Amino acid sequence: MLKRLTGGLFKPMLLNEDRLFPADPGTRTIARRLFAEVERLPLICPHGHTDPAWFAGNQAFPDPAQLLVIPDHYVLRMLNAQNIGLNELGVSTKDGSPFAKDAREVWRLFASNYHLFRATPTRLWLDHTFQTLFGLDVRLDAATADHYFDSISEKLSSPAFRPRALYERFNIEVITTTEGPNDPLSHHKTIREDGWKGRVITAYRPDPVVDPDFEGFLDNLKAFGEIAGEDITSWQGYLAAHRARRAFFADMGATSTDHGHPTAQTADLPSQEASDLYQRILSGKAGDADKELFRGQMLTEMAAMSIDDGLVMQLHAGSSRNHNAQIFERFGRDMGFDIPQPTGYVDALKPLLNRFGNDPKLRLVLFTLDETAYSRELAPLAGVYACLKLGPAWWFFDSPAGMMRYREIVTETAGFYNTVGFNDDTRAFPSIPARHDVARRVDCAFLARQVAEHLLEEDEAREIAVDLAYGLAKKAYNL
Amino acid sequence: MLKRLTGGLFKPMLLNEDRLFPADPGTRTIARRLFAEVERLPLICPHGHTDPAWFAGNQAFPDPAQLLVIPDHYVLRMLNAQNIGLNELGVSTKDGSPFAKDAREVWRLFASNYHLFRATPTRLWLDHTFQTLFGLDVRLDAATADHYFDSISEKLSSPAFRPRALYERFNIEVITTTEGPNDPLSHHKTIREDGWKGRVITAYRPDPVVDPDFEGFLDNLKAFGEIAGEDITSWQGYLAAHRARRAFFADMGATSTDHGHPTAQTADLPSQEASDLYQRILSGKAGDADKELFRGQMLTEMAAMSIDDGLVMQLHAGSSRNHNAQIFERFGRDMGFDIPQPTGYVDALKPLLNRFGNDPKLRLVLFTLDETAYSRELAPLAGVYACLKLGPAWWFFDSPAGMMRYREIVTETAGFYNTVGFNDDTRAFPSIPARHDVARRVDCAFLARQVAEHLLEEDEAREIAVDLAYGLAKKAYNL
Amino acid sequence: MLKRLTGGLFKPMLLNEDRLFPADPGTRTIARRLFAEVERLPLICPHGHTDPAWFAGNQAFPDPAQLLVIPDHYVLRMLNAQNIGLNELGVSTKDGSPFAKDAREVWRLFASNYHLFRATPTRLWLDHTFQTLFGLDVRLDAATADHYFDSISEKLSSPAFRPRALYERFNIEVITTTEGPNDPLSHHKTIREDGWKGRVITAYRPDPVVDPDFEGFLDNLKAFGEIAGEDITSWQGYLAAHRARRAFFADMGATSTDHGHPTAQTADLPSQEASDLYQRILSGKAGDADKELFRGQMLTEMAAMSIDDGLVMQLHAGSSRNHNAQIFERFGRDMGFDIPQPTGYVDALKPLLNRFGNDPKLRLVLFTLDETAYSRELAPLAGVYACLKLGPAWWFFDSPAGMMRYREIVTETAGFYNTVGFNDDTRAFPSIPARHDVARRVDCAFLARQVAEHLLEEDEAREIAVDLAYGLAKKAYNL
Repeated sequence: MLKRLTGGLFKPMLLNEDRLFPADPGTRTIARRLFAEVERLPLICPHGHTDPAWFAGNQAFPDPAQLLVIPDHYVLRMLNAQNIGLNELGVSTKDGSPFAKDAREVWRLFASNYHLFRATPTRLWLDHTFQTLFGLDVRLDAATADHYFDSISEKLSSPAFRPRALYERFNIEVITTTEGPNDPLSHHKTIREDGWKGRVITAYRPDPVVDPDFEGFLDNLKAFGEIAGEDITSWQGYLAAHRARRAFFADMGATSTDHGHPTAQTADLPSQEASDLYQRILSGKAGDADKELFRGQMLTEMAAMSIDDGLVMQLHAGSSRNHNAQIFERFGRDMGFDIPQPTGYVDALKPLLNRFGNDPKLRLVLFTLDETAYSRELAPLAGVYACLKLGPAWWFFDSPAGMMRYREIVTETAGFYNTVGFNDDTRAFPSIPARHDVARRVDCAFLARQVAEHLLEEDEAREIAVDLAYGLAKKAYNL
Repeated sequence: MLKRLTGGLFKPMLLNEDRLFPADPGTRTIARRLFAEVERLPLICPHGHTDPAWFAGNQAFPDPAQLLVIPDHYVLRMLNAQNIGLNELGVSTKDGSPFAKDAREVWRLFASNYHLFRATPTRLWLDHTFQTLFGLDVRLDAATADHYFDSISEKLSSPAFRPRALYERFNIEVITTTEGPNDPLSHHKTIREDGWKGRVITAYRPDPVVDPDFEGFLDNLKAFGEIAGEDITSWQGYLAAHRARRAFFADMGATSTDHGHPTAQTADLPSQEASDLYQRILSGKAGDADKELFRGQMLTEMAAMSIDDGLVMQLHAGSSRNHNAQIFERFGRDMGFDIPQPTGYVDALKPLLNRFGNDPKLRLVLFTLDETAYSRELAPLAGVYACLKLGPAWWFFDSPAGMMRYREIVTETAGFYNTVGFNDDTRAFPSIPARHDVARRVDCAFLARQVAEHLLEEDEAREIAVDLAYGLAKKAYNL
Repeated sequence: MLKRLTGGLFKPMLLNEDRLFPADPGTRTIARRLFAEVERLPLICPHGHTDPAWFAGNQAFPDPAQLLVIPDHYVLRMLNAQNIGLNELGVSTKDGSPFAKDAREVWRLFASNYHLFRATPTRLWLDHTFQTLFGLDVRLDAATADHYFDSISEKLSSPAFRPRALYERFNIEVITTTEGPNDPLSHHKTIREDGWKGRVITAYRPDPVVDPDFEGFLDNLKAFGEIAGEDITSWQGYLAAHRARRAFFADMGATSTDHGHPTAQTADLPSQEASDLYQRILSGKAGDADKELFRGQMLTEMAAMSIDDGLVMQLHAGSSRNHNAQIFERFGRDMGFDIPQPTGYVDALKPLLNRFGNDPKLRLVLFTLDETAYSRELAPLAGVYACLKLGPAWWFFDSPAGMMRYREIVTETAGFYNTVGFNDDTRAFPSIPARHDVARRVDCAFLARQVAEHLLEEDEAREIAVDLAYGLAKKAYNL
């Protein structure tokens, strides 16, 4: 059962073709049939965080550690939880303290702790990447670390592993990146202008100029006025700047906006009150309540603009960012220290919904990190408001059990057609096929159980499987 | 596999006899055996919202749209979520704006969107109704809409489809309706007096005169004093009016009261404080805190009266009603815009329970729309207080997965015997057999898994299945 | 199928060897193989509430009622929920009112209501105890009550059923009891000094002198100063007393502390503010906010001491104790009237974690009664902070479905290695093997499903099973 490799015999890594399907043989057979219908559909990636520079420059990715370990907050957090410091893993420090710079050593450290990821989605994504992308067939551990490092390094240096080649190999139909309002979108321009057929579009994420707690907020505002050519010292000028940048983003292909807020709070202030609030925010002296109110007001303003310009609105609410002060000071953001919080939607969304909730031109896709809201609030809301759609299971719940809970909890109240299919929502480009593979398998497993328990006919399940894997995302995001 | 019908060949609709049973063959066999014990037991309907006028007047139901679409908030909400306006569905408007009046057109609109209900309980209930009540055997869609409309219309006009005939056909042993304190119960009187053997009883739901936020509250109070023959301008007179109306309801067969509150808050004020609070409420100038306190105080007063008169008390807490102001103004209440909210029970019930929690004459059945409370609060509370019982999975959770979660989450702490069996809780009379069928199947599926995993012996499971389907409801509601 | 016994034929009680394993035959076979690896491993009992006097004195346990009914709050609460009063069950009263004193009558009452426990963990634990410890093979009910009473009584009087013999028979490797700071630990001293090879250690639970709401708090403080030989009238003296008693507990074998708080709130006050707060607490006039702040500050102080002395810290948060005032007055605490509450960890733990969260010498094991926190807060926290570990499913959730939910919800984010294996956490000594048996079976069932769905290889699952059953607890608690 062991594989022979330089250095000895090693445990094989096998992606079983039935992975994630229910164990009951009858149900598994149905799942296989459904999956055969969707396995090879093109990938729609309507929301994510890949770097447009990759597709613009099409340079080779660096070594395995820089590609797969150092930028992946899922990997960092699990290793940190076992007392392996971020600096040992090659994360650069902001305070000048030393950090590991030898990519092979970082990789070995990761490899020798790979057992920590057992039964996590990270393991699923990585094994899929190792096997299907890099052709590896032994299990990653301390003994195979160098074999992995060398094999992957070699592959990365070949033209077939450049970003554009991977885009094509992955069968991506469209991929959306996420940029702030002050981004000049030069990479997107390059991509559009040099004749490559790949479709890489942006999404408008205005948090840096909407969230008064964002790093450098007041400076961001200044730059925002400049790039938009508007006077952001007035409320009307500030709103005009958003309109201008949204129009530019839409010109560059954007079909959506995205809003990362600590809560789902919305507000609908009379114009003068909103203007006064903006002035307090602009003074840099606003308190927490004003900041929260401002973020809430801006969601409603963004909804108004979406009704005008047709951009689909996304709300990613409920993360308590940068939980540990020492880590934040030493390493900065996105180190795995963002922790979900209880997040309410019913009262929070009411101001926006009472204003625009029945407007057929609005589409607002909701995400949560508080799974309790799915059955209690989100499915009931998305199951009645035409403007609301449910985004897929997000972040920690972008996982087999997380996705299965999502379908089990959401479907009876919201059905399938008030959801928007899958988002891979990742900056880990090589993992994109793995993530869609997991989502498609879990959905087929869910549908197979529905068929096996005679809640759906198989012809219906087939149609739904295709919608969940492909059609709904394309439609929801106007792609 | 297709069925021939005027107009062509159509997909068959088949209610599989194993629907909702676990796919594992061994477990399914156990589920079948258990279900055979309960499938034909009479229906106990201890809580619901059917119209007593149906049983009193015994008139034919109108057309399919008025029977199955327009009054069903589950149907309305799902279609509204896909931009099909309530007015297009035939819901009458309060503002004089136009709405669809052609029943066949409404039915066609519904039929052509029936795929939206895939994997929802509405689909289960309706397919069961279509097949077992109306004898239909092709799938509902745009192509079969007229066939459905004509077939159902024809059936509805025959004597065998009048309300009393259906009551008998459905094998209902007793059905409870729900009326406000100002209802003269004339239909119940008619039913009792004209010699029909059906048992249609009422339940006392005092929300219109207990909840200061209820539409027309102050007018309701005035009418309450008149119908009860008490002076409701004093606290004592107001309480006396409740006692009088409860006695009248009990005379008309009621064995229970029902309380629909936004929260589970209770209060136990000294008599003078309660009286002062009532005067503030009566003035029409009370604030939100006073209103909440008054509702809470009234739950405790109702518990005191239940100890005296033996009516079983039900608390349906946690719905944020009429979430959208525009919809409420245009169409009124019960349009699918009631959304659950986080609901706490531990502190909220403490005042009532510290006063009456150990009185063996009190029985309080608790319902929730916040599933997180089941394992954290409700099962622990019902698993220790003799006066508390857990009502079945409610509203959005009156569904296969909702009921299964309920058993999985509740049973280990509260057992079976602190629950009260099934409530269909519906105004959709034709769906009542379907709802009991789903509940019985899900309970048998749950029990079959317990037997298959050797947590229960099959003879025990059989006994429990009968209790869940029949015995517990009858006993809990003193029927 | 019935068993012959004096008095007639009775239903057999059979612990099926496949109990708790998934019904699917293929998955069950995997579960059996995994369980065979762990079934006979020694028991690590790192947290619980057995009485050290049992092991010191090694006296025979009294009758079945006093062993298995009267001290078991799971049993009491379920019977009380069905209107069987605690006094009828032999619980002594504090107000002098009568209570049952005939052990056989109490046992009969319990036996004739044993069906109430169907599908609860109590039933599992007791049946396991009855069959494997006492050799009973018929089902407990009214008819077999006396047979049970006599059989168990006879066994209890034999030397083989003395505490030390049971410790050995149960294959316990180490068991931890829990004592307050004012306990002289004389039983532990006896156990250590008389040469018995059993390892019974204590844990430092300072609630009586840390929680201002604890019964007799100010008196406890006085005694605390005396036993520690420190002046507890000053903040520094009070902290010194803790250090002294912790050192004494550690000398007597303790490797851990335990903290039972109503919430998970921590605080990190400047020293002078902490000192001022302590003086307000000491005055006996502190309000609820001060009490909560003090408990929070003390968690951070305890963390500081743990970093110094290496004791592993446990936080059991979220129980609303003694929910019913009448019961508390009449019977005292631990009568089944402790009810979980919503419990937040993200903001609550931040002060402690910002101070000590990155110190590799701290280990803090978190427990919750609010299952919603597992996926939203606890797994994300334990999956990134090296000092945090997740304790097993606790109290109401120390049950097959509770443990399965725990693995399903926790594992994808926290993995296996940020959890600490199993705690039996019980005062019911005879049930300890049953509890470990349930935990091991559920973990093997979970792992078998992972293998069957190809998320883990079987060799990995085998290794994990052994860690969950044995290795993790030993390591996490430094045993």
